[in-house]
Amino acid sequence: MLKVGVVGYGYWGPNIVRNFHLGPDSRVEMVCDKSPDMLRRVNKTYPDIKTTSNCMDVVTSPTIDIVAVVTPVWTHYDLAKKALSNGKHVFVEKPFTSNIEQADELIELAQKNNLQIMVDHTFLYTGAVRKIRQFIEDGTLGELYYYDSTRVNLGLFQHDINVLWDLAPHDLSIMDYLIDSRAEAISATGQKHLNGHEDIAFMTVYFPNKVIAHINVNWLSPVKVRTTLIGGKKKMLVWNDLEADEKIKVYDKGVRINDNNTVYDLLVSYRSGDMWAPQLERIEALKAETDHFVDCVNNNKKSVNDGHAGRRVVQMLQAASESVQNRGEAVRL
Amino acid sequence: MLKVGVVGYGYWGPNIVRNFHLGPDSRVEMVCDKSPDMLRRVNKTYPDIKTTSNCMDVVTSPTIDIVAVVTPVWTHYDLAKKALSNGKHVFVEKPFTSNIEQADELIELAQKNNLQIMVDHTFLYTGAVRKIRQFIEDGTLGELYYYDSTRVNLGLFQHDINVLWDLAPHDLSIMDYLIDSRAEAISATGQKHLNGHEDIAFMTVYFPNKVIAHINVNWLSPVKVRTTLIGGKKKMLVWNDLEADEKIKVYDKGVRINDNNTVYDLLVSYRSGDMWAPQLERIEALKAETDHFVDCVNNNKKSVNDGHAGRRVVQMLQAASESVQNRGEAVRL
Amino acid sequence: MLKVGVVGYGYWGPNIVRNFHLGPDSRVEMVCDKSPDMLRRVNKTYPDIKTTSNCMDVVTSPTIDIVAVVTPVWTHYDLAKKALSNGKHVFVEKPFTSNIEQADELIELAQKNNLQIMVDHTFLYTGAVRKIRQFIEDGTLGELYYYDSTRVNLGLFQHDINVLWDLAPHDLSIMDYLIDSRAEAISATGQKHLNGHEDIAFMTVYFPNKVIAHINVNWLSPVKVRTTLIGGKKKMLVWNDLEADEKIKVYDKGVRINDNNTVYDLLVSYRSGDMWAPQLERIEALKAETDHFVDCVNNNKKSVNDGHAGRRVVQMLQAASESVQNRGEAVRL
Amino acid sequence: MLKVGVVGYGYWGPNIVRNFHLGPDSRVEMVCDKSPDMLRRVNKTYPDIKTTSNCMDVVTSPTIDIVAVVTPVWTHYDLAKKALSNGKHVFVEKPFTSNIEQADELIELAQKNNLQIMVDHTFLYTGAVRKIRQFIEDGTLGELYYYDSTRVNLGLFQHDINVLWDLAPHDLSIMDYLIDSRAEAISATGQKHLNGHEDIAFMTVYFPNKVIAHINVNWLSPVKVRTTLIGGKKKMLVWNDLEADEKIKVYDKGVRINDNNTVYDLLVSYRSGDMWAPQLERIEALKAETDHFVDCVNNNKKSVNDGHAGRRVVQMLQAASESVQNRGEAVRL
Repeated sequence: MLKVGVVGYGYWGPNIVRNFHLGPDSRVEMVCDKSPDMLRRVNKTYPDIKTTSNCMDVVTSPTIDIVAVVTPVWTHYDLAKKALSNGKHVFVEKPFTSNIEQADELIELAQKNNLQIMVDHTFLYTGAVRKIRQFIEDGTLGELYYYDSTRVNLGLFQHDINVLWDLAPHDLSIMDYLIDSRAEAISATGQKHLNGHEDIAFMTVYFPNKVIAHINVNWLSPVKVRTTLIGGKKKMLVWNDLEADEKIKVYDKGVRINDNNTVYDLLVSYRSGDMWAPQLERIEALKAETDHFVDCVNNNKKSVNDGHAGRRVVQMLQAASESVQNRGEAVRL
Repeated sequence: MLKVGVVGYGYWGPNIVRNFHLGPDSRVEMVCDKSPDMLRRVNKTYPDIKTTSNCMDVVTSPTIDIVAVVTPVWTHYDLAKKALSNGKHVFVEKPFTSNIEQADELIELAQKNNLQIMVDHTFLYTGAVRKIRQFIEDGTLGELYYYDSTRVNLGLFQHDINVLWDLAPHDLSIMDYLIDSRAEAISATGQKHLNGHEDIAFMTVYFPNKVIAHINVNWLSPVKVRTTLIGGKKKMLVWNDLEADEKIKVYDKGVRINDNNTVYDLLVSYRSGDMWAPQLERIEALKAETDHFVDCVNNNKKSVNDGHAGRRVVQMLQAASESVQNRGEAVRL
Repeated sequence: MLKVGVVGYGYWGPNIVRNFHLGPDSRVEMVCDKSPDMLRRVNKTYPDIKTTSNCMDVVTSPTIDIVAVVTPVWTHYDLAKKALSNGKHVFVEKPFTSNIEQADELIELAQKNNLQIMVDHTFLYTGAVRKIRQFIEDGTLGELYYYDSTRVNLGLFQHDINVLWDLAPHDLSIMDYLIDSRAEAISATGQKHLNGHEDIAFMTVYFPNKVIAHINVNWLSPVKVRTTLIGGKKKMLVWNDLEADEKIKVYDKGVRINDNNTVYDLLVSYRSGDMWAPQLERIEALKAETDHFVDCVNNNKKSVNDGHAGRRVVQMLQAASESVQNRGEAVRL
Repeated sequence: MLKVGVVGYGYWGPNIVRNFHLGPDSRVEMVCDKSPDMLRRVNKTYPDIKTTSNCMDVVTSPTIDIVAVVTPVWTHYDLAKKALSNGKHVFVEKPFTSNIEQADELIELAQKNNLQIMVDHTFLYTGAVRKIRQFIEDGTLGELYYYDSTRVNLGLFQHDINVLWDLAPHDLSIMDYLIDSRAEAISATGQKHLNGHEDIAFMTVYFPNKVIAHINVNWLSPVKVRTTLIGGKKKMLVWNDLEADEKIKVYDKGVRINDNNTVYDLLVSYRSGDMWAPQLERIEALKAETDHFVDCVNNNKKSVNDGHAGRRVVQMLQAASESVQNRGEAVRL
């Protein structure tokens, strides 16, 4: 039974605490938050969990095995470093760190101390993403053409980061998981209207073999959209994460070009067949993820969303922010 | 009663012929197409309209007042020039020309000969775009923040141009009409998978005063999407052109920031009120447009979608194509 | 090449004329309408078709083989009788007649004169209904449980009949085609708010083997709905006729009951699998229907929507109207 | 601070316990369930709440003021009677009782003992139903024409009652609240396919002044639908309870009839204006309801969903079940 200490009990913290606390092989020992109000809530819901406002109590506790860092991104590096230095495995919110240097240092420290890092790329554990991964692996989609995600809503929850760092990590981690090759370059554009950070932004990621990805993120949208189009040579799919059922629709549609023709007389043929919405696993993704991390720590397994995956996402975010400053000029990775 | 000659009876030509022929002050005199099949169709439907496979018959006809050019874009310049040189007013498909130089030359020629040019930016005459224009003019939306359009479907109809030149003119002409200021710079990205032209592309247009526009066009989408989000300081709207009714939904939603706070303690307040779908004028946009052109010619009026508007769209397309080659590097206009 | 005379050029008449006129083996010879305006429209669109305001010109014309009756229902009997008496085959709008007696007389007359009757149950020729029929025939749905249709919109187009006679014939003819057994009894309810005829009504049709059908029709709905649920033991489907694509969605869902249990402890198990939207034939249903009628006449074939089918629909409508008067008391057929 | 005893901790029980326990003026003292498993769950979540498997402990507890009956319908009468006899106020699940006689007896008993009964018609406390009630009261909808609800899904949760008793109480209680007059007669139809109870049923309720209501309930639907159309002379609305936002859409649509015309020449005019989705109160309906019941008990107020309202719903269900047996023959109330 691994003991977990959780730092941060804000928006997402309660979910982390619940899942680690009710997991088959883990229990939360202590929760840290600077707000006495939040700690009172912990006490009320979990009378058996200790609370503190001093994060050092968590990272230095001799009985804690895993420290979960559920705080704003600019604090991740410092807290994770303290935890790793004290021999704790680290579960950390996305995005992993504020820059690549911090990520590199944490990865190295973990390796030296033989500790594990998991970055909370929750979406990788959803039934939807697992199904898409399967469709790519088993050749259902065929050669990949593009990944195009729209992730917009009304909400300016973050004050220290722009909309890319807030919303794009979801898609970047999903792409990192789905696409076998590594991103080569990034072009991004955006605009700041309110608080000095981009509140609307668009990001293009170039992959090898003509695979292209695009992410549209926006804090100023009147409607919530969570839709991703994925196009392959054999099939194409639409993933609408807001649908209660039928989140993924696979279309037997495509285009074929007859190359023997002259340029103004190409023979284009369209294929338009059935649509199919596969039944998805109904699991709580976060529970699958925290259980898996505990298993990784216990049995020395490797997760797909380790520190390296977290670093790749940070690298893409950093490149995107740089590109936005230069109005879309691509940054090579 | 103005006489119209139409060159090109392909996908869109029949609509042009029908509207000019049934207009209150115009009649189609002659239709030209290189395909005998198409001409037979003209004969069957309109026994009173002359047909020819030689475009010179149209542009030199002494009785024709207006020549409508409904052919692929690479032929526009040559046909329009012939028509203008022979003293005909010109109605030409979008995009106006293949490059700015051609547009400039045609505009100059028309001016010299005291002739009118209308570029077929049909969407400007829809009830939806007229209503949005009204919401901007009367201050309903407030200061404009962004215009974000997704225009995707399965279809590779064009062989001489990429997906930007095929689908983006709709949005570029709409933006040109809705936004009072002129675009400053363009960044675009995209990828070619099939026939040597970009089949998926993304375009960001920078306007003064932090107004930003984005266009997502794709020939390889399994589903058809025609959705535009427009965000203003006071209200935001969603225009879904595929809805039979309720194409436009106006949301009384917004974000307010209290500037007096420190950076990590900003007071963000959200406003979330009613939604409202205004009744739109039910007109055939193309009929309104062709009638208006006839009125412009008859009474020497000026249309919003004249040669200058057509040129601005071509300029943006040209900049976008250049930017795509340089992976998003912005092109100043 | 069969010659067709069409009586009635109102809302639906132009479609009938177009399809018979352009059919491979038929041509329209004459159109009759009491409105000179309508006849002028015929002249303009089809200069080669004769027009008349006297229906006797059509039914007595020696060269006409088929008379299409596209007029209000209360005129069907008289016009069809005149046509059959003059040796013409009859294509007649739904509902076939105003009552069963009229239907019986027309069927007998046709039989005696060796003539064909087709009642315009257009929906039977759509890709959607054909696909559903196939799913029933090939056992995909399994034993049928229910057919439940909602057909509502804003519109009070008919002044001589109630909403049941206006909208329910669609569903009644579809059910008659899909369900192998014959309806046994009908219960219907409704209410009149405006012009002395029911403008909202609900109809239950009892079939053998516990198959039940329900039809919800309404002229006073703010939204248009055309949705049918069909439940079978093995699969269930939703047919939304307003969807551009994916009109039919088949669900691998169901319920199983373990009979061995006591009443308060039943073992109910649910099955919830994939959803699947089959590609449908894209045809103009009316064209398929008129072509088929011409083929029936030419080659002495029998259509599914003959006079007997038309009579069964009239019988159900008559029973429903009677039931409505008695607040739902069932009428046996 | 009122003390509440809850009998039944199944599907809905935990919500009742949570809301009474966290209410400003109430606390749950004891929970009764026959399943030791359920009681363990209570102990785990609420260490301070007593548990018992004997309902007499609850109804005879000297400190308990309110007994909440959250058990199958056939047990309501007995439990509520015991509670009222012991001087407890009663909060009881819908439907109130298995028949009118039981309801009458409980109402009388409560009156005699000066106790309150609330039947859990939760929907009356939702933002949606409150808004619709307001639209009726303030004349927005105008004279009421119809109420038409579809409430279908896959699910056979009840073994002692048919689908009408399971799903229709929602709509019947809402209608009872929205419509000022009392139902006059009921016609219902349905069919049993699986376990000896109707699993699909249709119910028409006749009200004075030509107001008609219709309810479509179905346990064998592949899709979940919760849609109600309400038509008035001035406006019509659609309430889709499955929408996250915009649950209610009000349409400025209608029909007008010019009475001066002859029957075949009626002047029907349609009005088609804007659509409007009002912002709804975001509250937990059940919390508003339990808080209100506590307030009623404390301050001797009367709730709209008292025993009489519960009785009216039971009366309509009983009439509907009787009508179903007679294939739709109306039952007068």
